[in-house]
Formats: sequence, structure tokens, C-alpha cells
Amino acid sequence: MQLFSLRPPEEVSIDDIAAAAGASRPLVYHYFPGKQALYEESLRRAGQELAGRFEEPAAGPLSERLYRVMGRYLDYVDSHGPGFAARLRGGSVAASPGTNAVIDQVRRAAHDQILLHLAVAEPSAGLRLTVRAWIANAEITSLEWLADRAVPREDLQLRLVQEFIASLTLTAAREPALAVELAGYFAEERPDGPTGRLVRELAGLFGVPGLADTVARLAAPPSA
Amino acid sequence: MQLFSLRPPEEVSIDDIAAAAGASRPLVYHYFPGKQALYEESLRRAGQELAGRFEEPAAGPLSERLYRVMGRYLDYVDSHGPGFAARLRGGSVAASPGTNAVIDQVRRAAHDQILLHLAVAEPSAGLRLTVRAWIANAEITSLEWLADRAVPREDLQLRLVQEFIASLTLTAAREPALAVELAGYFAEERPDGPTGRLVRELAGLFGVPGLADTVARLAAPPSA
Repeated sequence: MQLFSLRPPEEVSIDDIAAAAGASRPLVYHYFPGKQALYEESLRRAGQELAGRFEEPAAGPLSERLYRVMGRYLDYVDSHGPGFAARLRGGSVAASPGTNAVIDQVRRAAHDQILLHLAVAEPSAGLRLTVRAWIANAEITSLEWLADRAVPREDLQLRLVQEFIASLTLTAAREPALAVELAGYFAEERPDGPTGRLVRELAGLFGVPGLADTVARLAAPPSA
Repeated sequence: MQLFSLRPPEEVSIDDIAAAAGASRPLVYHYFPGKQALYEESLRRAGQELAGRFEEPAAGPLSERLYRVMGRYLDYVDSHGPGFAARLRGGSVAASPGTNAVIDQVRRAAHDQILLHLAVAEPSAGLRLTVRAWIANAEITSLEWLADRAVPREDLQLRLVQEFIASLTLTAAREPALAVELAGYFAEERPDGPTGRLVRELAGLFGVPGLADTVARLAAPPSA
């Protein structure tokens, strides 16, 4: 698992694995038919570990729960860099229906955990899509970040949470039932949490010359 | 290209290709060393076609330009369904460094086109990340949509554009130089365009009991 987490699978040989495990090449083959099977098993376990990090008690403001989850997710990304990247991109020559099934399971675990925290009785197609799209956003954003670490990790963590809150708000703006739930989530938020900071950052935009007037013009119903 | 666009590559044989082209199996092998090379060439051409759809004159409100581009993108997704999905997921057994390079080129073309329309002299790392994350969002959202078409296509098109505008606004809230540009983009927006509709949808949220008060509380600076 350590070898696969540090290098893309095509750069790991059975000999490397045998050496790292202090085992002979035949012994490795005794347990696994080949490197692909070994890789898929290591990926399955890594997936379980990653999915475990999404679990978070359903207590406290929503954005703070998600912020903690993202902290654990980014710890994982941080410590499993290149292997993690190869895995998610599916760009590895070891990509297969087996590896894709594991990745899909991790995505589903993330999706289900988020819906659990939203505690919506019957999530709409729109809400499910919002959650899935945000998970894709978190994946691609963390991969891009791994490549150059151009922004501090804490900024990334906060930014991803705020993007989820924004995306959820957009969805709620179209779905009255979700809008009522949103009011409930927001009621628990604290001024110094990710949502509070987002609200103040957005409020700050009204200080930009012309922007408040433009928004007021757009907010008026279009004339016939 | 038609065969690969309708079925995942593992379900297309050289015999199918020869039959569809009205050619013999040896003739196909005369031009291509094997199915993988043929698949990569078809993908390269499909990528060029898709990238071509991102081109849009730099005139009119930003959200309307993007809405037109998304219309052409969704036309493509719509008519290249299963093959398109297999391609982007990288879940096909035909995924390779060659196919991934093509997909990356299409993503880069989308990224560069968007930055062209934003006309920012020196895009920040944060803005680039916003654009890339939104492209990933558009990919995953269109794939999910292909699977069940749970929302009307026009909703998806509008939603993706509005999510870009929202994401751009969040980024501008952290970057004063981009906030000034944002005011310029918004000044050109029309009430019945995607941005105008977004502003009114969000304004509608203030009618949800409790939400306006909560936002006002969060907008106040946290007390010491």
C-alpha cells in the first residue's frame, strides 16, 4: 500500500513489492495472481480508509462539520500524493473496471455522508447532482493543488467548503423545500465559521464601484 | 468515429470497424497497427471537434456567451452519449497515456477559452483553479445527466452557467483585482440572462422565513 501510494502503479514492480514486504517473489504470487490483483486490493483498502475519513458526528454548524471532513480528506491527499493522483485520474495503465468500482464506492460514500448531514428526507435529483458535482470539484481541485500547491492548504480547505455552501444555496434558490432546510442550516452557522466568512466576503463585493447598482438593476424583474 | 461514439471501445471490434468502413480487415491493419491506435486517432479528432465548439465571439454579456458554448457542448454530449461517457471516465480498458493526453487537451482548450472571455491580464492561481474546477463540474454533471436525464437539458445548461458565475463571484470576493473585473462583467449582464435570473433566484431566498435575519447576523463582524 505504501509503494502504491507513493508511485503510480506502472512504476511499482512485483520485485519492489516482494522486497518491501521482505518476502520472495513466489510468495507474493502465492497470494496474488499478479500485480493488477495486488493493486486492486491495495486500492480497495485505501478506499475504505478514505471513506472512513468522511464520517463525522451530526452535530454543530454544517459548514464546520464539512470543514473538519475536508481537513481529514486533505491530510489523506497530502500524504498519498502521486499514487492518489494516478488513481483518481484513471490515467494509470492499471485503470480497470475493478479500480473504477473502488473509486466509485469512495465517491458514493462521500455523497451518502453529505446527504446524511443535510438530513433531507427525500433528496431531489437537483440536490444529488449538486453533491456529486461538488465531490468532483473537490477531487479535481485537490489534484490541481497537489501539482503545484499554489494556494495554502487552509485556503483550499475553506474554499471547498464555501463552494459547497454556495452550490447548495444556488440549488435551494430553485427548490422551495430545500430553501426551508437551508434556513435551518444557516441558523446554526457562526460568524467565524466558513459560512459566516463567506457571507462577509460576498457582502464586501458590494463595496466594489458599480457592482451594488448592477445587482440592484438585475434583481428588479425584467420590464415587458 | 461513429462506432466509438456510440459504444465503449471495448465493445467495438476491428471487424465492426472494417464492416462499417466497407473495408477488409487487412486494409484496416494496413493503416493502423491495431484498435488502440485507431481509437486514439478517433478520440483525437473527436477532441478537436469538441474543442472547436468552445470557440465563441468575445461579444455580449459573459453569461450569455457561456450559455451558448454550453448549448453546443451539451449537443455534443447528447449525440455522443455512451462513447463520450466511457471516454471521460477513463474507465474504459482502452484508457492510456494517449487517450488521457487528448482529454487533457480538450480540458485545456476549455480553460483557455474561458480565460480569453474573462480577459484578465494575469489570471491568479485561484482563478485558474476556479475555471478548472468548474470544467470538472461540467464534465461530471453532464455524465450524471446522461445516465438518467433527471432534469431537462435547458435547466442543466442554465445551471452550469450560473454555477460558473457563482464560483467566479466567490473567487472575486477574495481577490480585489478580480472583483473590479467582475463589476465590469456584471455591468453588461441583462435581467433575462443567466446572471440576471441567478440574482433574482438568490434574492428570492430572502423571503424564506429566518434566512434574511440569519444572513444579516452572519454579515456583521464577529464580536471579540
